[in-house]
Amino acid sequence: MGAPTDKIPKTQKAAVVRDKKVAIEDVPVVQPSDLKVGQVLVKVLYSGVCHTDLHAQLGDWPLVHKEPLIGGHEGAGIIVAIGEHTDTDLKLGDRVGIKWLADSCLKCDYCRQGYEPLCHQAQCSGFTVDGSFQQYAVSFARHVTKIPEGLPMDKAAPILCAGVTVYKALKQSNARPGEWVVIPGAGGGLGHLAIQYAQYMGLRVIAIDTGAEKQALCTKLGAERWIDFRQTDDIVKAVKAATPDGDGPHAAIVTSASGAAYEQALDYIRPHGTVVSVGLPPDAKVSADVFWTTFLEKQLKGSYVGNRQDAVEALAIAASGRVETTFRLLPFANLPDVYAQMHDGSLVGRVVLDLWA
Amino acid sequence: MGAPTDKIPKTQKAAVVRDKKVAIEDVPVVQPSDLKVGQVLVKVLYSGVCHTDLHAQLGDWPLVHKEPLIGGHEGAGIIVAIGEHTDTDLKLGDRVGIKWLADSCLKCDYCRQGYEPLCHQAQCSGFTVDGSFQQYAVSFARHVTKIPEGLPMDKAAPILCAGVTVYKALKQSNARPGEWVVIPGAGGGLGHLAIQYAQYMGLRVIAIDTGAEKQALCTKLGAERWIDFRQTDDIVKAVKAATPDGDGPHAAIVTSASGAAYEQALDYIRPHGTVVSVGLPPDAKVSADVFWTTFLEKQLKGSYVGNRQDAVEALAIAASGRVETTFRLLPFANLPDVYAQMHDGSLVGRVVLDLWA
Amino acid sequence: MGAPTDKIPKTQKAAVVRDKKVAIEDVPVVQPSDLKVGQVLVKVLYSGVCHTDLHAQLGDWPLVHKEPLIGGHEGAGIIVAIGEHTDTDLKLGDRVGIKWLADSCLKCDYCRQGYEPLCHQAQCSGFTVDGSFQQYAVSFARHVTKIPEGLPMDKAAPILCAGVTVYKALKQSNARPGEWVVIPGAGGGLGHLAIQYAQYMGLRVIAIDTGAEKQALCTKLGAERWIDFRQTDDIVKAVKAATPDGDGPHAAIVTSASGAAYEQALDYIRPHGTVVSVGLPPDAKVSADVFWTTFLEKQLKGSYVGNRQDAVEALAIAASGRVETTFRLLPFANLPDVYAQMHDGSLVGRVVLDLWA
Amino acid sequence: MGAPTDKIPKTQKAAVVRDKKVAIEDVPVVQPSDLKVGQVLVKVLYSGVCHTDLHAQLGDWPLVHKEPLIGGHEGAGIIVAIGEHTDTDLKLGDRVGIKWLADSCLKCDYCRQGYEPLCHQAQCSGFTVDGSFQQYAVSFARHVTKIPEGLPMDKAAPILCAGVTVYKALKQSNARPGEWVVIPGAGGGLGHLAIQYAQYMGLRVIAIDTGAEKQALCTKLGAERWIDFRQTDDIVKAVKAATPDGDGPHAAIVTSASGAAYEQALDYIRPHGTVVSVGLPPDAKVSADVFWTTFLEKQLKGSYVGNRQDAVEALAIAASGRVETTFRLLPFANLPDVYAQMHDGSLVGRVVLDLWA
Repeated sequence: MGAPTDKIPKTQKAAVVRDKKVAIEDVPVVQPSDLKVGQVLVKVLYSGVCHTDLHAQLGDWPLVHKEPLIGGHEGAGIIVAIGEHTDTDLKLGDRVGIKWLADSCLKCDYCRQGYEPLCHQAQCSGFTVDGSFQQYAVSFARHVTKIPEGLPMDKAAPILCAGVTVYKALKQSNARPGEWVVIPGAGGGLGHLAIQYAQYMGLRVIAIDTGAEKQALCTKLGAERWIDFRQTDDIVKAVKAATPDGDGPHAAIVTSASGAAYEQALDYIRPHGTVVSVGLPPDAKVSADVFWTTFLEKQLKGSYVGNRQDAVEALAIAASGRVETTFRLLPFANLPDVYAQMHDGSLVGRVVLDLWA
Repeated sequence: MGAPTDKIPKTQKAAVVRDKKVAIEDVPVVQPSDLKVGQVLVKVLYSGVCHTDLHAQLGDWPLVHKEPLIGGHEGAGIIVAIGEHTDTDLKLGDRVGIKWLADSCLKCDYCRQGYEPLCHQAQCSGFTVDGSFQQYAVSFARHVTKIPEGLPMDKAAPILCAGVTVYKALKQSNARPGEWVVIPGAGGGLGHLAIQYAQYMGLRVIAIDTGAEKQALCTKLGAERWIDFRQTDDIVKAVKAATPDGDGPHAAIVTSASGAAYEQALDYIRPHGTVVSVGLPPDAKVSADVFWTTFLEKQLKGSYVGNRQDAVEALAIAASGRVETTFRLLPFANLPDVYAQMHDGSLVGRVVLDLWA
Repeated sequence: MGAPTDKIPKTQKAAVVRDKKVAIEDVPVVQPSDLKVGQVLVKVLYSGVCHTDLHAQLGDWPLVHKEPLIGGHEGAGIIVAIGEHTDTDLKLGDRVGIKWLADSCLKCDYCRQGYEPLCHQAQCSGFTVDGSFQQYAVSFARHVTKIPEGLPMDKAAPILCAGVTVYKALKQSNARPGEWVVIPGAGGGLGHLAIQYAQYMGLRVIAIDTGAEKQALCTKLGAERWIDFRQTDDIVKAVKAATPDGDGPHAAIVTSASGAAYEQALDYIRPHGTVVSVGLPPDAKVSADVFWTTFLEKQLKGSYVGNRQDAVEALAIAASGRVETTFRLLPFANLPDVYAQMHDGSLVGRVVLDLWA
Repeated sequence: MGAPTDKIPKTQKAAVVRDKKVAIEDVPVVQPSDLKVGQVLVKVLYSGVCHTDLHAQLGDWPLVHKEPLIGGHEGAGIIVAIGEHTDTDLKLGDRVGIKWLADSCLKCDYCRQGYEPLCHQAQCSGFTVDGSFQQYAVSFARHVTKIPEGLPMDKAAPILCAGVTVYKALKQSNARPGEWVVIPGAGGGLGHLAIQYAQYMGLRVIAIDTGAEKQALCTKLGAERWIDFRQTDDIVKAVKAATPDGDGPHAAIVTSASGAAYEQALDYIRPHGTVVSVGLPPDAKVSADVFWTTFLEKQLKGSYVGNRQDAVEALAIAASGRVETTFRLLPFANLPDVYAQMHDGSLVGRVVLDLWA
């Protein structure tokens, strides 16, 4: 399966979103001769499922997406065709990842400085262009990420969005080795990766989540402090107390959909500390007190996915074996179910789809 | 006047705050033999008046201050005595400034990293210890700032709080030469200094304020764009339009007491830009949208006065002649009036007091 | 002259280097239909002449260049054709600069991090590909630099190598506003631009050069200290003495071809200071003392031209009117003479060629 | 042993260097009443021995040291007295470290910015003031480093110079998590600590040393690549080949006494990479090629011990259990032997002395 010399079929399975409903359909495969300059055709083997896919389905973000839409932006696959005249060192058979940021111009003020996700011409996989919930996805030669040797394709998938996002957020926090970072939701899909990247970077982790199972996971992954939010009256007090001097952690990586979590973080963060905002809820507000923000020199900093370099680094670190994703591997056909579970909040753990199972 | 060999009198004039009222009184001078280790006695020649002095008087900050209190934290004077056993290279007659941060421990986690204003043992001039609204002030050898040759004492005074504060805020913004910074209130006490420091640092300035007089001042000081907020319907749109690519400035230095100004700044700031919060209003909130903060990677960053190095740098730049403070020089006796005008909002321009006029 | 709709001729004037000799010849113009994907045809109006062109002619660098070769890498011109299938927002008629770094892959580890000059696939104008000493030059859409409105084309030319190089070197020095930078050769082609960029960035300049004329130039451009190396016995002592505390400048921008200048700089630079090495002499060595380099935490840092962002920034600053190049405008036909004068060391000042005069 | 209430004796054992000879002698203990303001008396329990002690003995550095001299600058002990009028939060019985940098002014341009080792008034333990090769050492309240709970005193000792030095050098290298650092002499006293700090910071280590025993040590401590210099013809080639893309490591931490090691490092370091110079040999030179330094943007950066913050951080990381020092614990009486072995090059491994054995 997946040899680049396989014949490319005319049709494929894809998960198509129309009018906020998702269904697996047979759709045409873009043929190599129809690829535009700069495009590649990727035979997708695995794709992670991310909460953002739900926002794309529901259309509840203040952004316009493609309709009908094929979602998915944690795709791992192989190059099976390259658009004519494309300037690239990619070869047929190369293992690549399709991340959220499908393309950016690489020439504008933002791209030139590495702020690729902020490019005005940015394209997003599974949002403004069709993504990885299909067996053959069109993507962009200059933005797909080579998957390093030794990293299995299914394990690479969740790194492409969840991994990159938390890794970049940790970089943005400017926390230095030996400093403390708190991760609310540490036992979740983003959180359990954040613990490991933080560990890798020499940061000491305070994990916030609930339940013995998540506690065991967080501790195993390297968290040195554990706070069960269901058993803690005063989270702010507990987080501060978890640091040696009681002044609170140097950084917080907040992925929450609720503004309250950001406000709490601005409270428990150490003077001169940074709250990195990673969440993209459609309508949450964080209310920061001007006096204390100034007086204690606190920072609130948005961090949005990652650029090409962040993706390369996040994958390289995963390939070193020191970051492991916990996920369930499900057949592609289960995707509508997974969407439904995300919608009603019952989805447990991170899911990776096998596009060919 | 001011020779270090002058006899130190037993009593002096001082502006004493009691029960939210201020009055010029005759009070004792701390005698050289009563100075503690590490203390110096400064004959204050000039002192700037800052809005913070009003907060100290009113007690409307969520911080405890001394009572009765002698305010003032922009003092310029000369060393007339040094506490016994004090380890210092200061000599009698040295010209020094008394800034807001009167003292810090220089040993804690914060001080060791240069975050001196965040030291748990920090003392504040005119707040937790008596300040520069007196003819002879006790201050701390390790924290007073030498005033460089060639900078007149009255001109040095406002640099010690207003100047340091905006200079440090500009540093915190991480804006680089050639980038754009917007300064709301650019014609005011802090703003007109911010224009000049920004200019010195190679930043391009968008000034926001109102009236032809302030426009003339801002333009003269180097602002390249002017927005009169009274004549502008949509400030966010106007600020963005003032930058060459329409994406907005890289940084904003916001000194406002109103939360709305910070929210506006988060709106008009460029993607990846930084809103530096400098104001210390007792009760304002800034409500930031989580989605856009994350998606556009915006930053809100508190900046609180400056450390010893910031003060040295701000004074050195002023001494180079490229930063000039606009102020009115008034006799010390006018201070109660100045407080009253600050209180009712009628004070125009920055005031420096002559302690001996 | 220069309208993009002009007919593109079949032949043109070009300065061709063969066997270390240069001659103006009639050579074919690459026709629009022969441009490869990603290439543009630039009608060159002006081109600066740089010392590097001499190295290319002589072949005395440890690098392989094209042969025969058309030199030139400070070209300012207009886009007259764009290769088919090229992904670009450039339009016919756009004013663009051809800088030393003609192209880089924008995808590798170096390019992704902005270290474009270090790309293994980098192409250099007038070295590995033909440059701007011809009336119609082929260059690369993704690397030509738009010349901002208001900056005349002849004035833009020297910014594209000399300006970018010193501007980037100043950035690499990490010197901050208010700190001191020394510029040996301050009156020369690179030096007089370095003074101005340093000034723009808030750096205080110590100029080293010789003669009253250069002194006048340096002073006019903003240098605060002047050292005439012909009238100074001990340069190291003089440079240190030129700084307020006698410890030496924070940074040195050394463009010299002689190793001794770098050694001197490592001597006079302040503890923790940075010597930025900009020169590319074929065979010079700098001998640094290990003990003192370590003990005084000195740094020697290579800085090689600039990336696309550096070029945009350097041009934007020049367009602001605060950086002016001093040069002589000569007809293209004079180029062999200019080469000869560079060779025998008699060339005075920076030269810009009018390709159409 | 070591209770702060112990009576302080009048005499003690100390290793005194006179005329380049060292001997254990009975010398007076500075009595509490003779301590100056700012001084503390430390009952030294353990002291590491460092190569620098040999330089102090031989007087072969271009610096003036005290004579007669008590060496030692990796002292771990407890506070038994504090000079009157000293401003400190230290208490009798506190466990503290005496590092190389015994004191600095904390007020000058260097100290204010954290460059404490560069302070003109810096005092060095066992060099300009007597050090930790005595049972009761006088040191300075503001510069001794608290030893964190859970870190045994003997293990803390070598961190105070060897640990801090390599940790700070790694910070100076600016290498980021996931990047590669090469450590020549990785199996030695500094090197084996450097491996562990690098690991902690997320850096990937190439160890250079010789012999199966050192290979086993380096590998156990986390080095991912091993180069035996005795079995390698071309070190430069081998180091480059040890990195995934063959371009060489991002940083090198060179502690060698020979200039050649630095030159080699400048050769094998990756473009834009940094060679951190840590060695302090009396007379070595490193000869850097100007062309390649510039063209490949290489950096040579001196790093000299560490400041107070570096010491706190290095100890905190050691206390986390992730950095372990390999050393032999010897009785104080062995010190003259240890010196002799350092002198003739036969000393194996790091030595810590028990001052009371």
